[in-house]
Amino acid sequence: MIYLVIYDISDDSLRLKVSKFLKSKGLRRVQWSAFVGDLTTSQLRDVESGLTLIMKGKMKEGERRNVQIYPLTERQFQQRIVIGVLDERGEENVLM
Amino acid sequence: MIYLVIYDISDDSLRLKVSKFLKSKGLRRVQWSAFVGDLTTSQLRDVESGLTLIMKGKMKEGERRNVQIYPLTERQFQQRIVIGVLDERGEENVLM
Repeated sequence: MIYLVIYDISDDSLRLKVSKFLKSKGLRRVQWSAFVGDLTTSQLRDVESGLTLIMKGKMKEGERRNVQIYPLTERQFQQRIVIGVLDERGEENVLM
Repeated sequence: MIYLVIYDISDDSLRLKVSKFLKSKGLRRVQWSAFVGDLTTSQLRDVESGLTLIMKGKMKEGERRNVQIYPLTERQFQQRIVIGVLDERGEENVLM
């Protein structure tokens, strides 16, 4: 099954950790804070528990820290509408 | 059908315009740069053409300007995994 992972993480280093983690699990970036991957149920559990671990810890005042994972079919992914420029670079490419 | 709209727009005023537009079309914010709405096909076309119009125009060097719209079933939306704090405030609540 395909999963779309979108995240809103205001802390720069945490956000970079999340994007590197998702890449390490074979997901592919489709937007600055969005990744897609074809995962088995156990791979999904692995991603979910890994993210939960990374995101643990006390939040600072006003900090935003949220990840959402949506199941999609291949057909729904193909049906997606893209408006504007697809920029598959990410922070790890830009910041490095 | 439910649609998840995710956007990566680096220009502050353009990003605010997009979020206000999506709200005006009845979509609900689920993350800082993500909205969800139950739309008919013609409502979807209306959202797509409105976003295309808003996003038109020359981009500055290094600017990011991308919107993606994913179809989802109600069940898939219910199955979504949320990790971390759900913060349904948005820029228009914070900046105002």
